[in-house]
Amino acid sequence: MACIFGAFRCSLQGIAINQQHDMPAMIETPEGYAPQKPETLSAYLSGIDAVRSILGGAPEQWTIAEVGDGNLNLVFIVKGPEGGVAVKQALPYVRLVGESWPLPLSRAHYEHMALTEQARLTCALVPKIHHYDERQALIVMELLEPHIIMRRGMIAATEYPKFADDISTFMARTLYFTSDLALTADRKKALIAAFAGNSALCKITEDLIFTDPYRVAELNRWTSPQLDAYAARWREDGDLKVAVSRLKLKFLSSAEAMLHGDLHTGSIMLTPEDTRIIDPEFAFIGPMGFDVGAIVANFLINFFAQDGHEKRPGDRDAYRDWVLSTLEKIITQFREKFLALWRENPTGDAYPSSLFQGSGGEARLELERQAYMDRLWADTVGFAAAKMIRRILGLAHNIDLELIEDPDRRATCEARALTLARDMMVNSARYPTIASVTEAARRVRMDMASY
Amino acid sequence: MACIFGAFRCSLQGIAINQQHDMPAMIETPEGYAPQKPETLSAYLSGIDAVRSILGGAPEQWTIAEVGDGNLNLVFIVKGPEGGVAVKQALPYVRLVGESWPLPLSRAHYEHMALTEQARLTCALVPKIHHYDERQALIVMELLEPHIIMRRGMIAATEYPKFADDISTFMARTLYFTSDLALTADRKKALIAAFAGNSALCKITEDLIFTDPYRVAELNRWTSPQLDAYAARWREDGDLKVAVSRLKLKFLSSAEAMLHGDLHTGSIMLTPEDTRIIDPEFAFIGPMGFDVGAIVANFLINFFAQDGHEKRPGDRDAYRDWVLSTLEKIITQFREKFLALWRENPTGDAYPSSLFQGSGGEARLELERQAYMDRLWADTVGFAAAKMIRRILGLAHNIDLELIEDPDRRATCEARALTLARDMMVNSARYPTIASVTEAARRVRMDMASY
Repeated sequence: MACIFGAFRCSLQGIAINQQHDMPAMIETPEGYAPQKPETLSAYLSGIDAVRSILGGAPEQWTIAEVGDGNLNLVFIVKGPEGGVAVKQALPYVRLVGESWPLPLSRAHYEHMALTEQARLTCALVPKIHHYDERQALIVMELLEPHIIMRRGMIAATEYPKFADDISTFMARTLYFTSDLALTADRKKALIAAFAGNSALCKITEDLIFTDPYRVAELNRWTSPQLDAYAARWREDGDLKVAVSRLKLKFLSSAEAMLHGDLHTGSIMLTPEDTRIIDPEFAFIGPMGFDVGAIVANFLINFFAQDGHEKRPGDRDAYRDWVLSTLEKIITQFREKFLALWRENPTGDAYPSSLFQGSGGEARLELERQAYMDRLWADTVGFAAAKMIRRILGLAHNIDLELIEDPDRRATCEARALTLARDMMVNSARYPTIASVTEAARRVRMDMASY
Repeated sequence: MACIFGAFRCSLQGIAINQQHDMPAMIETPEGYAPQKPETLSAYLSGIDAVRSILGGAPEQWTIAEVGDGNLNLVFIVKGPEGGVAVKQALPYVRLVGESWPLPLSRAHYEHMALTEQARLTCALVPKIHHYDERQALIVMELLEPHIIMRRGMIAATEYPKFADDISTFMARTLYFTSDLALTADRKKALIAAFAGNSALCKITEDLIFTDPYRVAELNRWTSPQLDAYAARWREDGDLKVAVSRLKLKFLSSAEAMLHGDLHTGSIMLTPEDTRIIDPEFAFIGPMGFDVGAIVANFLINFFAQDGHEKRPGDRDAYRDWVLSTLEKIITQFREKFLALWRENPTGDAYPSSLFQGSGGEARLELERQAYMDRLWADTVGFAAAKMIRRILGLAHNIDLELIEDPDRRATCEARALTLARDMMVNSARYPTIASVTEAARRVRMDMASY
């Protein structure tokens, strides 16, 4: 059965930020905007030739199910005799809460722009867009079937043999081709300007990832009382707070490339044969390590969570190995692919080819390319750590951990993840390679018997 | 006698970039745009109440002189019985060359925006704007009298006792208050977007400062044959080319604060009592060290140039001391003022106060503030070096050096500046303080007898 749960799972973030920061109580909607209902949607869709031909038959034969259950957006699955589509429509507020917690409809505009750009750069790694209606903040897209949200697959210990190849391609191509290495400065500046208005979504990240887990914030939550001491220590840890603030500053001011902006395993729908990255509504021009770090963080969280899902001790050993070896492949292949794109497409204004002519020039530039990737990796380690911490001490948690029913067991998994994350953030130079990260993850798991 | 030469001295840069990069041959002008002439200007100005009351008398009594001699813009000085104004109008092409070398009129828009913001932040340190006409790309501003361009004053060994205080205030306030330390992220993003269109002017910097001096470029020039070996070595120096490329990448992708963008001693008009920063048409949101580095570079160039202006050996010793001690004061005061603004106005989204409560938090944050300033200083050293090099091996030179008639003597001054600049760029960690820079400048001058 098709599922596009991923398409609205960022809702909890939206709620938190708006409530905390007293954003304006109402956001105006454009004239003519109206939230769809199953009763209205088939008439709306029947007016779109492309959609009608995908669904087939007559509108009366279409089944429409609203599957967004109390989140940011409306999400419908529509099926006809010949095929199906998914419909995502933004609401001017957080659906779960109502109009008192507004969130701009423009997120649909940024999602559509990012999806379009990602499709151009990666082809089949994002859902196809069938129709976009700016006024309705509504995207009709490919129904992904029988794809499931990757996080659920990883909790069930499903291996995805194509994933490392696909996600490394997605990251390398979307980041490289929107960076100063590939773009001329004027096109890069136009891209920055095009996404600058997505500040409400960026602010969710700024607050929930880089700020709240390190201070008293009403909506923070953690496995209590088991992790109370961790949460308290986090709020008093000056080195950690400086480190996360440096990362936040980088997020605010480093306009390196177009980010997906929310690239965790809940934003990926896949089968063992096919991978699709969804939900880029947090897209903006930011530091590349933020996207790569999201993948690293979510793989590490899943690794630590496996102890909570074992029925017998050790029955997830093989899957743990798959998680870490796949993570190593992702990072290694990302680096290789990014470097290959750079060597083959030095079309941007940064590191102009004209400065590095001849074999001596090329050799020196290649050294610098490696140094560039090392710097990007150092950023990645920090951002990964920030994303692990926020999933344990902040508002929005991962079901990898949340589905562990025994709180002591869950707290042990979480404490291990927190311990590794703190060290990655404060001492990122100790993690010069992905292998040093995966090795540390194994070591922390072995060394920490309980929280 | 009033002089606004500074208002159009960036012209040579504009010429170079457009010629080299085959920009579109024509740039459209808005309907109704027409370049002013002395004959048309008094009718134009008489329609502006504010200007008429400054000038006084009747339009027939006004004298109008066009003082832009073959550069980017039209510049008029208009005087009436009661006062005067300066009028700066952009042309859609580089005036010196004609319509074949276009440059967008929009630079007047960005200059006006930056001037407005700088006036708000620094009050009396920029010329007052009396009138702005977007369609005519025309700014009517305060006539600065009896101010002269600082570079000319420094060549004549004039001391400016207020300058260190004024320029450090200008930099601290314009950079701090447009950074993530002072602005919320949404306002910062809006500022980035507002200046993103100024890419044609940014490109001039990208090419002429960060690229051309390190490669064969038609419009590069240097004191030849004396510095031929330097120019050749520069083009083969892999470490230097990597270092300048990292700086270029930072210029392209670090959106730290609103820069003046061209903050050299030719963009400053002053008297011993009054300082005004003019010509921010290169303004955009970039790395702070670029503005601070421009001041450092131009002071160091002037220091090295003094040997070329001595009538008797040693007769500029006292002025050399003034130049370096003033530079030390500028940087020291800039740091103190920036830090004081940060402590007093922690209103931005970066380093949120809520993370650093209590005396322990404040102490840790203060350490980080110092570390932040150290990082900014490291950037400054690199950008200063890039700006010294471009003035000697690139297209646009400084009259500090150009007015030295004897080419051997000039080349000696230039070789010293190049030698220091290369080391600052490649080994910037050797220059942890401004004192280490000024000390090195004295040492290089003593050690290098000739080019």
